[in-house]
Amino acid sequence: MKIAVLGTGVVGQALAGRLAELGHEVTVGTRDVEGTMAKTSPDGMGNPPYPQWAAGQPKVRLATFAEAAADAEVLVNATSGSATLPAVRAASAADLTGKILIDIANPLDFSAGFPPSLFVKDTDSLGEQLQAEFPGLRVVKTLNTLTAELMVRPRAVADGNHTVFMAGNDAGAKKTVAGLLESFGHTDVIDLGDITGARGTEMLLPLWLRLMGTLNTPMFNIKVVR
Amino acid sequence: MKIAVLGTGVVGQALAGRLAELGHEVTVGTRDVEGTMAKTSPDGMGNPPYPQWAAGQPKVRLATFAEAAADAEVLVNATSGSATLPAVRAASAADLTGKILIDIANPLDFSAGFPPSLFVKDTDSLGEQLQAEFPGLRVVKTLNTLTAELMVRPRAVADGNHTVFMAGNDAGAKKTVAGLLESFGHTDVIDLGDITGARGTEMLLPLWLRLMGTLNTPMFNIKVVR
Repeated sequence: MKIAVLGTGVVGQALAGRLAELGHEVTVGTRDVEGTMAKTSPDGMGNPPYPQWAAGQPKVRLATFAEAAADAEVLVNATSGSATLPAVRAASAADLTGKILIDIANPLDFSAGFPPSLFVKDTDSLGEQLQAEFPGLRVVKTLNTLTAELMVRPRAVADGNHTVFMAGNDAGAKKTVAGLLESFGHTDVIDLGDITGARGTEMLLPLWLRLMGTLNTPMFNIKVVR
Repeated sequence: MKIAVLGTGVVGQALAGRLAELGHEVTVGTRDVEGTMAKTSPDGMGNPPYPQWAAGQPKVRLATFAEAAADAEVLVNATSGSATLPAVRAASAADLTGKILIDIANPLDFSAGFPPSLFVKDTDSLGEQLQAEFPGLRVVKTLNTLTAELMVRPRAVADGNHTVFMAGNDAGAKKTVAGLLESFGHTDVIDLGDITGARGTEMLLPLWLRLMGTLNTPMFNIKVVR
Protein backbone atom coordinates (compact mmCIF):
# COMPACT_ATOMS: atom_id res chain seq x y z
CA MET A 1 0.00 0.00 0.00
CA LYS A 2 0.94 3.67 -0.31
CA ILE A 3 1.36 4.89 3.24
CA ALA A 4 2.12 8.36 4.62
CA VAL A 5 3.74 8.44 8.05
CA LEU A 6 3.19 11.86 9.61
CA GLY A 7 6.06 12.64 11.98
CA THR A 8 9.84 12.28 11.72
CA GLY A 9 10.67 11.36 15.34
CA VAL A 10 11.50 7.97 16.75
CA VAL A 11 7.88 6.75 16.47
CA GLY A 12 7.59 7.85 12.84
CA GLN A 13 10.96 6.28 12.06
CA ALA A 14 9.94 2.95 13.63
CA LEU A 15 6.66 2.83 11.69
CA ALA A 16 8.13 4.03 8.38
CA GLY A 17 11.07 1.65 8.55
CA ARG A 18 8.97 -1.39 9.36
CA LEU A 19 6.32 -0.59 6.74
CA ALA A 20 9.03 -0.13 4.08
CA GLU A 21 10.62 -3.42 5.16
CA LEU A 22 7.24 -5.10 4.63
CA GLY A 23 7.14 -3.80 1.06
CA HIS A 24 4.88 -0.75 1.40
CA GLU A 25 5.57 2.48 -0.47
CA VAL A 26 6.26 4.87 2.40
CA THR A 27 6.47 8.66 2.44
CA VAL A 28 7.24 10.41 5.70
CA GLY A 29 5.43 13.72 6.13
CA THR A 30 6.88 16.72 7.92
CA ARG A 31 5.97 20.37 8.46
CA ASP A 32 9.24 21.60 6.97
CA VAL A 33 11.28 19.31 4.70
CA GLU A 34 14.36 21.51 4.61
CA GLY A 35 14.32 22.00 8.37
CA THR A 36 13.99 18.24 8.95
CA MET A 37 16.90 17.49 6.60
CA ALA A 38 19.06 20.13 8.32
CA LYS A 39 18.82 18.40 11.72
CA THR A 40 22.16 17.23 13.05
CA SER A 41 21.57 16.62 16.77
CA PRO A 42 19.80 13.74 18.52
CA ASP A 43 16.34 14.40 20.04
CA GLY A 44 15.79 14.83 23.78
CA MET A 45 15.88 11.05 24.28
CA GLY A 46 19.17 10.59 22.42
CA ASN A 47 17.61 9.19 19.25
CA PRO A 48 19.44 9.98 15.98
CA PRO A 49 18.24 12.96 13.92
CA TYR A 50 16.05 12.20 10.89
CA PRO A 51 18.76 12.57 8.17
CA GLN A 52 20.99 10.02 9.92
CA TRP A 53 18.11 7.52 10.12
CA ALA A 54 16.98 8.28 6.56
CA ALA A 55 20.45 7.57 5.17
CA GLY A 56 19.79 3.90 5.89
CA GLN A 57 16.30 3.97 4.34
CA PRO A 58 16.78 4.67 0.61
CA LYS A 59 13.19 3.66 -0.23
CA VAL A 60 11.52 6.05 2.23
CA ARG A 61 10.72 9.48 0.79
CA LEU A 62 10.33 12.70 2.77
CA ALA A 63 7.70 15.29 1.80
CA THR A 64 5.41 17.87 3.33
CA PHE A 65 2.39 16.63 5.28
CA ALA A 66 0.07 17.49 2.36
CA GLU A 67 2.32 15.97 -0.33
CA ALA A 68 2.72 12.77 1.67
CA ALA A 69 -1.02 12.55 2.30
CA ALA A 70 -2.04 13.27 -1.30
CA ASP A 71 -0.67 10.00 -2.68
CA ALA A 72 -1.41 7.75 0.28
CA GLU A 73 -4.25 5.31 0.92
CA VAL A 74 -3.33 5.10 4.60
CA LEU A 75 -1.98 7.85 6.87
CA VAL A 76 -0.23 7.09 10.15
CA ASN A 77 -0.27 9.85 12.74
CA ALA A 78 3.09 9.43 14.46
CA THR A 79 3.40 13.02 15.66
CA SER A 80 3.28 13.89 19.36
CA GLY A 81 -0.18 14.46 20.82
CA SER A 82 0.22 18.23 20.95
CA ALA A 83 1.38 18.35 17.30
CA THR A 84 -1.37 16.03 16.02
CA LEU A 85 -4.20 18.38 15.10
CA PRO A 86 -1.88 20.94 13.41
CA ALA A 87 -0.18 18.13 11.45
CA VAL A 88 -3.45 16.65 10.18
CA ARG A 89 -4.75 20.15 9.38
CA ALA A 90 -1.65 20.67 7.24
CA ALA A 91 -2.13 17.26 5.60
CA SER A 92 -5.75 18.16 4.82
CA ALA A 93 -4.56 20.64 2.18
CA ALA A 94 -4.74 17.40 0.18
CA ASP A 95 -8.13 15.69 -0.25
CA LEU A 96 -8.31 13.19 2.61
CA THR A 97 -11.81 11.87 1.84
CA GLY A 98 -12.08 8.13 2.47
CA LYS A 99 -8.46 7.71 3.54
CA ILE A 100 -7.60 5.73 6.65
CA LEU A 101 -5.84 7.58 9.48
CA ILE A 102 -4.09 5.30 11.97
CA ASP A 103 -3.77 7.43 15.10
CA ILE A 104 -1.04 6.20 17.43
CA ALA A 105 -0.50 9.44 19.38
CA ASN A 106 -1.32 10.15 23.01
CA PRO A 107 -2.59 13.49 24.36
CA LEU A 108 0.38 14.04 26.66
CA ASP A 109 0.88 17.46 28.23
CA PHE A 110 4.46 17.95 29.44
CA SER A 111 3.94 21.61 30.42
CA ALA A 112 4.27 20.71 34.11
CA GLY A 113 7.18 18.29 33.56
CA PHE A 114 7.27 14.53 34.05
CA PRO A 115 5.02 12.61 34.40
CA PRO A 116 2.86 14.35 31.81
CA SER A 117 -0.86 14.85 32.31
CA LEU A 118 -3.46 14.27 29.55
CA PHE A 119 -4.83 17.34 27.75
CA VAL A 120 -7.99 15.46 26.80
CA LYS A 121 -9.48 12.51 28.72
CA ASP A 122 -12.43 10.77 30.30
CA THR A 123 -15.35 12.10 28.23
CA ASP A 124 -13.35 12.77 25.03
CA SER A 125 -10.09 11.65 23.40
CA LEU A 126 -7.56 12.69 20.79
CA GLY A 127 -8.91 9.98 18.47
CA GLU A 128 -12.41 11.44 18.76
CA GLN A 129 -11.14 14.99 18.23
CA LEU A 130 -9.51 13.87 14.97
CA GLN A 131 -12.63 12.04 13.77
CA ALA A 132 -14.84 15.03 14.65
CA GLU A 133 -12.66 17.58 12.87
CA PHE A 134 -12.05 15.38 9.79
CA PRO A 135 -15.29 13.44 9.21
CA GLY A 136 -14.07 12.31 5.76
CA LEU A 137 -11.14 10.44 7.33
CA ARG A 138 -11.63 6.94 8.67
CA VAL A 139 -9.78 7.21 11.99
CA VAL A 140 -8.55 4.06 13.71
CA LYS A 141 -6.93 4.45 17.12
CA THR A 142 -4.35 1.77 17.81
CA LEU A 143 -0.76 1.06 18.94
CA ASN A 144 -0.77 3.98 21.43
CA THR A 145 -0.40 1.62 24.39
CA LEU A 146 3.13 0.38 23.73
CA THR A 147 6.61 1.64 22.93
CA ALA A 148 7.56 2.30 19.29
CA GLU A 149 9.87 -0.69 18.93
CA LEU A 150 7.19 -3.07 20.22
CA MET A 151 4.48 -1.48 18.05
CA VAL A 152 6.23 -2.81 14.97
CA ARG A 153 8.11 -5.83 16.38
CA PRO A 154 5.81 -7.24 19.08
CA ARG A 155 7.68 -10.55 19.08
CA ALA A 156 10.58 -8.82 20.83
CA VAL A 157 8.71 -9.47 24.13
CA ALA A 158 7.27 -12.90 25.05
CA ASP A 159 7.19 -13.82 21.36
CA GLY A 160 4.27 -11.42 20.86
CA ASN A 161 2.00 -13.02 23.47
CA HIS A 162 0.29 -9.74 24.44
CA THR A 163 -2.55 -7.48 23.32
CA VAL A 164 -3.06 -4.46 21.11
CA PHE A 165 -6.32 -2.46 20.95
CA MET A 166 -8.15 -0.89 18.03
CA ALA A 167 -11.08 1.55 17.99
CA GLY A 168 -12.81 3.27 15.08
CA ASN A 169 -16.16 3.87 13.41
CA ASP A 170 -15.42 2.17 10.07
CA ALA A 171 -15.35 -1.64 9.93
CA GLY A 172 -13.50 -1.73 6.59
CA ALA A 173 -10.77 0.57 7.88
CA LYS A 174 -10.35 -1.60 10.99
CA LYS A 175 -10.03 -4.69 8.82
CA THR A 176 -7.19 -3.05 6.86
CA VAL A 177 -5.52 -1.90 10.08
CA ALA A 178 -5.85 -5.33 11.70
CA GLY A 179 -4.08 -6.78 8.65
CA LEU A 180 -1.20 -4.33 9.07
CA LEU A 181 -0.98 -5.11 12.80
CA GLU A 182 -0.84 -8.84 12.08
CA SER A 183 1.87 -8.24 9.48
CA PHE A 184 3.92 -6.58 12.24
CA GLY A 185 3.52 -9.75 14.34
CA HIS A 186 0.58 -8.88 16.59
CA THR A 187 -1.46 -11.96 17.49
CA ASP A 188 -4.15 -10.54 19.82
CA VAL A 189 -5.92 -7.48 18.34
CA ILE A 190 -9.00 -6.49 20.38
CA ASP A 191 -11.57 -4.35 18.55
CA LEU A 192 -13.05 -2.01 21.18
CA GLY A 193 -15.78 -0.78 18.86
CA ASP A 194 -16.28 2.82 17.75
CA ILE A 195 -13.78 5.64 18.16
CA THR A 196 -14.95 6.42 21.71
CA GLY A 197 -12.92 3.31 22.62
CA ALA A 198 -9.87 5.58 22.22
CA ARG A 199 -10.63 7.10 25.64
CA GLY A 200 -9.69 4.00 27.57
CA THR A 201 -6.53 3.31 25.60
CA GLU A 202 -5.30 6.90 25.95
CA MET A 203 -6.08 6.85 29.67
CA LEU A 204 -3.85 3.80 30.04
CA LEU A 205 -0.83 6.07 29.57
CA PRO A 206 -0.40 7.14 33.22
CA LEU A 207 -0.21 3.46 34.26
CA TRP A 208 2.08 2.70 31.31
CA LEU A 209 4.46 5.53 32.25
CA ARG A 210 4.48 4.44 35.90
CA LEU A 211 5.23 0.87 34.88
CA MET A 212 8.07 2.05 32.65
CA GLY A 213 9.61 3.69 35.73
CA THR A 214 8.95 0.66 37.94
CA LEU A 215 10.25 -1.92 35.46
CA ASN A 216 13.00 0.43 34.27
CA THR A 217 12.30 -0.37 30.61
CA PRO A 218 9.68 0.48 27.98
CA MET A 219 9.90 -3.08 26.59
CA PHE A 220 6.71 -4.46 28.10
CA ASN A 221 3.06 -4.66 27.12
CA ILE A 222 -0.21 -5.76 28.65
CA LYS A 223 -2.09 -8.88 27.76
CA VAL A 224 -5.80 -9.17 28.35
CA VAL A 225 -6.07 -12.56 30.04
CA ARG A 226 -9.52 -14.14 29.67
CA MET B 1 -5.71 -10.55 61.55
CA LYS B 2 -8.62 -8.42 62.68
CA ILE B 3 -9.99 -6.86 59.52
CA ALA B 4 -12.81 -4.34 58.97
CA VAL B 5 -14.41 -4.41 55.55
CA LEU B 6 -16.18 -1.10 54.94
CA GLY B 7 -19.12 -1.65 52.58
CA THR B 8 -21.89 -4.25 52.43
CA GLY B 9 -22.28 -4.56 48.63
CA VAL B 10 -21.04 -7.30 46.37
CA VAL B 11 -17.39 -6.12 46.64
CA GLY B 12 -17.53 -5.99 50.42
CA GLN B 13 -19.19 -9.41 50.52
CA ALA B 14 -16.50 -10.94 48.27
CA LEU B 15 -13.68 -9.55 50.40
CA ALA B 16 -15.28 -10.32 53.75
CA GLY B 17 -16.21 -13.86 52.75
CA ARG B 18 -12.76 -14.70 51.41
CA LEU B 19 -10.93 -13.15 54.37
CA ALA B 20 -13.14 -15.09 56.81
CA GLU B 21 -12.51 -18.29 54.84
CA LEU B 22 -8.78 -17.66 55.22
CA GLY B 23 -9.18 -17.47 59.00
CA HIS B 24 -9.24 -13.72 59.61
CA GLU B 25 -11.57 -12.13 62.14
CA VAL B 26 -13.80 -10.03 59.91
CA THR B 27 -16.26 -7.27 60.79
CA VAL B 28 -18.20 -5.61 58.00
CA GLY B 29 -18.79 -1.89 58.57
CA THR B 30 -21.88 -0.03 57.42
CA ARG B 31 -23.40 3.40 57.89
CA ASP B 32 -26.62 2.00 59.33
CA VAL B 33 -26.66 -1.51 60.79
CA GLU B 34 -30.44 -1.71 61.15
CA GLY B 35 -31.01 -0.40 57.63
CA THR B 36 -28.55 -2.91 56.19
CA MET B 37 -30.20 -5.81 58.02
CA ALA B 38 -33.64 -4.67 56.83
CA LYS B 39 -32.71 -5.01 53.15
CA THR B 40 -34.76 -7.58 51.29
CA SER B 41 -34.24 -6.75 47.59
CA PRO B 42 -31.24 -7.44 45.34
CA ASP B 43 -29.01 -4.50 44.35
CA GLY B 44 -29.15 -2.92 40.87
CA MET B 45 -26.98 -5.72 39.46
CA GLY B 46 -29.19 -8.50 40.89
CA ASN B 47 -26.83 -9.41 43.73
CA PRO B 48 -28.49 -10.72 46.92
CA PRO B 49 -29.13 -8.24 49.74
CA TYR B 50 -26.70 -8.27 52.67
CA PRO B 51 -28.86 -10.26 55.15
CA GLN B 52 -29.24 -13.11 52.65
CA TRP B 53 -25.46 -13.23 52.09
CA ALA B 54 -24.73 -12.86 55.82
CA ALA B 55 -26.94 -15.83 56.69
CA GLY B 56 -24.27 -18.06 55.14
CA GLN B 57 -21.41 -16.28 56.95
CA PRO B 58 -21.88 -16.94 60.69
CA LYS B 59 -18.35 -15.78 61.55
CA VAL B 60 -18.67 -12.34 59.91
CA ARG B 61 -19.97 -9.62 62.21
CA LEU B 62 -21.78 -6.44 61.13
CA ALA B 63 -21.16 -3.14 62.92
CA THR B 64 -21.03 0.59 62.28
CA PHE B 65 -18.05 1.93 60.33
CA ALA B 66 -16.47 3.26 63.54
CA GLU B 67 -17.12 0.10 65.60
CA ALA B 68 -15.69 -2.09 62.84
CA ALA B 69 -12.61 0.15 62.49
CA ALA B 70 -11.96 0.44 66.22
CA ASP B 71 -10.96 -3.20 66.65
CA ALA B 72 -9.26 -3.76 63.29
CA GLU B 73 -5.59 -3.74 62.32
CA VAL B 74 -6.50 -3.54 58.65
CA LEU B 75 -9.41 -1.70 57.02
CA VAL B 76 -10.62 -2.54 53.51
CA ASN B 77 -12.48 0.23 51.70
CA ALA B 78 -15.04 -1.70 49.66
CA THR B 79 -17.54 1.14 49.35
CA SER B 80 -18.27 2.77 46.01
CA GLY B 81 -16.02 5.66 45.01
CA SER B 82 -18.60 8.33 45.78
CA ALA B 83 -19.27 6.82 49.24
CA THR B 84 -15.59 6.37 50.14
CA LEU B 85 -14.69 9.65 51.86
CA PRO B 86 -17.93 9.78 53.91
CA ALA B 87 -17.41 6.14 54.97
CA VAL B 88 -13.82 6.66 56.11
CA ARG B 89 -14.83 9.91 57.85
CA ALA B 90 -17.44 7.91 59.78
CA ALA B 91 -14.86 5.21 60.58
CA SER B 92 -12.46 7.88 61.84
CA ALA B 93 -14.68 8.40 64.89
CA ALA B 94 -12.41 5.55 66.05
CA ASP B 95 -8.66 6.17 66.33
CA LEU B 96 -7.24 5.10 62.97
CA THR B 97 -3.61 6.00 63.67
CA GLY B 98 -1.19 3.49 62.19
CA LYS B 99 -3.92 1.27 60.74
CA ILE B 100 -3.66 0.00 57.17
CA LEU B 101 -6.40 1.04 54.76
CA ILE B 102 -6.63 -1.12 51.65
CA ASP B 103 -8.46 1.07 49.13
CA ILE B 104 -10.07 -0.95 46.34
CA ALA B 105 -12.62 1.67 45.22
CA ASN B 106 -12.70 3.60 41.94
CA PRO B 107 -13.81 7.23 41.57
CA LEU B 108 -16.70 6.43 39.23
CA ASP B 109 -19.28 9.11 38.53
CA PHE B 110 -22.52 7.63 37.19
CA SER B 111 -24.39 10.96 37.18
CA ALA B 112 -24.43 11.00 33.35
CA GLY B 113 -25.23 7.28 33.06
CA PHE B 114 -23.06 4.49 31.66
CA PRO B 115 -20.18 4.46 31.02
CA PRO B 116 -19.29 6.44 34.14
CA SER B 117 -16.68 9.20 34.08
CA LEU B 118 -14.04 9.63 36.82
CA PHE B 119 -14.64 12.33 39.44
CA VAL B 120 -10.91 12.58 40.16
CA LYS B 121 -8.13 11.73 37.70
CA ASP B 122 -4.86 12.56 35.99
CA THR B 123 -3.19 14.82 38.58
CA ASP B 124 -4.90 13.33 41.64
CA SER B 125 -6.67 10.12 42.67
CA LEU B 126 -9.09 8.74 45.24
CA GLY B 127 -6.18 6.93 46.91
CA GLU B 128 -4.31 10.21 47.31
CA GLN B 129 -7.40 12.01 48.58
CA LEU B 130 -7.75 9.39 51.31
CA GLN B 131 -4.08 9.58 52.28
CA ALA B 132 -4.19 13.38 52.34
CA GLU B 133 -7.30 13.58 54.52
CA PHE B 134 -6.20 10.78 56.88
CA PRO B 135 -2.41 11.11 57.26
CA GLY B 136 -2.42 8.68 60.20
CA LEU B 137 -3.75 5.88 58.00
CA ARG B 138 -1.36 3.84 55.86
CA VAL B 139 -3.29 3.75 52.57
CA VAL B 140 -2.50 1.05 50.03
CA LYS B 141 -4.31 1.20 46.70
CA THR B 142 -4.82 -2.23 45.16
CA LEU B 143 -7.34 -4.64 43.60
CA ASN B 144 -9.29 -1.81 41.92
CA THR B 145 -8.42 -3.09 38.44
CA LEU B 146 -10.41 -6.33 38.48
CA THR B 147 -13.86 -7.65 39.26
CA ALA B 148 -14.72 -8.62 42.85
CA GLU B 149 -14.73 -12.38 42.27
CA LEU B 150 -11.26 -12.24 40.67
CA MET B 151 -9.88 -9.94 43.38
CA VAL B 152 -10.23 -12.76 45.90
CA ARG B 153 -10.02 -15.84 43.61
CA PRO B 154 -7.57 -14.85 40.86
CA ARG B 155 -7.05 -18.50 39.90
CA ALA B 156 -10.55 -18.51 38.37
CA VAL B 157 -8.96 -17.05 35.18
CA ALA B 158 -5.83 -18.55 33.58
CA ASP B 159 -4.90 -20.13 36.92
CA GLY B 160 -3.99 -16.66 38.22
CA ASN B 161 -1.43 -15.87 35.52
CA HIS B 162 -2.13 -12.12 35.53
CA THR B 163 -1.14 -8.98 37.41
CA VAL B 164 -2.36 -6.91 40.33
CA PHE B 165 -0.96 -3.48 41.24
CA MET B 166 -0.21 -1.90 44.59
CA ALA B 167 0.64 1.71 45.50
CA GLY B 168 1.24 3.34 48.87
CA ASN B 169 3.67 5.40 50.90
CA ASP B 170 4.39 2.83 53.64
CA ALA B 171 6.64 -0.12 52.83
CA GLY B 172 5.51 -2.12 55.89
CA ALA B 173 1.85 -1.71 54.97
CA LYS B 174 2.57 -2.84 51.42
CA LYS B 175 4.35 -5.92 52.73
CA THR B 176 1.28 -6.87 54.78
CA VAL B 177 -1.02 -6.21 51.82
CA ALA B 178 1.17 -8.22 49.44
CA GLY B 179 0.91 -11.13 51.87
CA LEU B 180 -2.90 -10.90 51.83
CA LEU B 181 -2.92 -10.71 48.01
CA GLU B 182 -0.73 -13.80 47.78
CA SER B 183 -3.01 -15.62 50.22
CA PHE B 184 -5.87 -14.92 47.78
CA GLY B 185 -3.83 -16.56 45.01
CA HIS B 186 -2.21 -13.57 43.29
CA THR B 187 1.18 -14.45 41.84
CA ASP B 188 2.27 -11.18 40.17
CA VAL B 189 1.96 -8.17 42.50
CA ILE B 190 3.64 -5.07 41.04
CA ASP B 191 4.54 -2.34 43.55
CA LEU B 192 4.09 0.98 41.71
CA GLY B 193 5.72 2.98 44.48
CA ASP B 194 4.05 5.74 46.48
CA ILE B 195 0.32 6.48 46.58
CA THR B 196 0.48 8.65 43.44
CA GLY B 197 0.66 5.30 41.62
CA ALA B 198 -3.09 5.08 42.31
CA ARG B 199 -3.69 7.54 39.44
CA GLY B 200 -2.73 5.10 36.73
CA THR B 201 -4.66 2.18 38.20
CA GLU B 202 -7.83 4.26 38.66
CA MET B 203 -7.50 5.60 35.10
CA LEU B 204 -7.46 2.03 33.82
CA LEU B 205 -11.19 1.82 34.56
CA PRO B 206 -12.48 3.28 31.27
CA LEU B 207 -10.50 0.64 29.35
CA TRP B 208 -11.63 -2.04 31.81
CA LEU B 209 -15.29 -1.10 31.40
CA ARG B 210 -14.96 -1.03 27.62
CA LEU B 211 -13.32 -4.46 27.66
CA MET B 212 -16.10 -5.82 29.86
CA GLY B 213 -18.57 -4.75 27.16
CA THR B 214 -16.40 -6.11 24.33
CA LEU B 215 -15.68 -9.45 25.98
CA ASN B 216 -19.18 -9.61 27.49
CA THR B 217 -17.82 -10.72 30.87
CA PRO B 218 -16.03 -9.13 33.85
CA MET B 219 -13.96 -12.30 34.29
CA PHE B 220 -10.71 -11.06 32.76
CA ASN B 221 -7.61 -9.27 33.96
CA ILE B 222 -4.48 -7.76 32.48
CA LYS B 223 -1.03 -9.23 32.73
CA VAL B 224 2.04 -7.05 32.42
CA VAL B 225 4.14 -9.06 29.96
CA ARG B 226 7.85 -8.27 30.22
